Amino acid sequence: MRSNPERRTALVDAAIEVLAGEGARGLTFRAVDVAAGVPNGTASNYFANRDDLLTQAGLRIHDRLGPDPKDLDQPPSEEFLTALLRLLRERLTADRTGYLALLELRLEATRRPALQEALTRRVRANLEENIALHDAHGLPGDPMVLYVAIGGLMLEQLTLPGVLPEDALEQVVRGLLSPGA
Amino acid sequence: MRSNPERRTALVDAAIEVLAGEGARGLTFRAVDVAAGVPNGTASNYFANRDDLLTQAGLRIHDRLGPDPKDLDQPPSEEFLTALLRLLRERLTADRTGYLALLELRLEATRRPALQEALTRRVRANLEENIALHDAHGLPGDPMVLYVAIGGLMLEQLTLPGVLPEDALEQVVRGLLSPGA
Repeated sequence: MRSNPERRTALVDAAIEVLAGEGARGLTFRAVDVAAGVPNGTASNYFANRDDLLTQAGLRIHDRLGPDPKDLDQPPSEEFLTALLRLLRERLTADRTGYLALLELRLEATRRPALQEALTRRVRANLEENIALHDAHGLPGDPMVLYVAIGGLMLEQLTLPGVLPEDALEQVVRGLLSPGA
Repeated sequence: MRSNPERRTALVDAAIEVLAGEGARGLTFRAVDVAAGVPNGTASNYFANRDDLLTQAGLRIHDRLGPDPKDLDQPPSEEFLTALLRLLRERLTADRTGYLALLELRLEATRRPALQEALTRRVRANLEENIALHDAHGLPGDPMVLYVAIGGLMLEQLTLPGVLPEDALEQVVRGLLSPGA
């Protein structure tokens, strides 16, 4: 397999576009080549098989969605809440594609044990990081409740944006995290 | 179009099986005929087009997932919490297929405005019902937070069941709804 890291990342990002736009079933090496604008046959030189491509896409999305720790490295305060809300709003808008692709991968993982295992490991590590951050900042409430509430909110806003009120994100985050909540 | 209601429901249930098993892209009239064990060409007599089939599947899942109101028609109490937890646990196990199919439809709705509109109307009605139930029972906390938290929990448990602890459902529901919470 080829190992040019920049080319590989560009191909994985193209795979994420295909996942969000076409669904997991639309993700073929050929579709990735087209989306990346590279010669037919390129992607197949970079990934061992479809499972490998799906798994690398799943890990890459988490890298893209990962928080910027410097924004959040402060005690619970109005500034902390503002920074967290900005981060989450960005995910809903700037990386809508990444998040939709991740939902496609979660569903595909119900049919692919190797993908499920890789995603589980990565998501569990993220959750543990969130819990540590929550504790380190002395935030109120249960970090697992916050985690599932944000996950459910992202799902709702990205797939059926007309259901919740416009300020739902703010309402949920402040409801669970405001100092004194 | 044919109008035998039982046959129609059987076809829609078969479509839900196909959605959960194969994803939205795998949902063809032919696949529905095969899953329902009926002659090739049957489904196309019952649905105007693929949008119609997808929309009917989405509404049917909500009928299947709808709560049994008699179980929940009581004030906030240990019995209420037990009944609610049992209901949610059943959705996670008995109608895992329906819930996975609904997630597929939510993603497909990002590409199909008619489906998105139909699902939005139905999901918003459900949410309003939940809020009314929450208020009528004088439950603690914000019903929207409960709604997104349960949604996020179902997503996590159905797609990556190894991430959260086994008692996550109990922990989230009791955390948000215990009398005095």
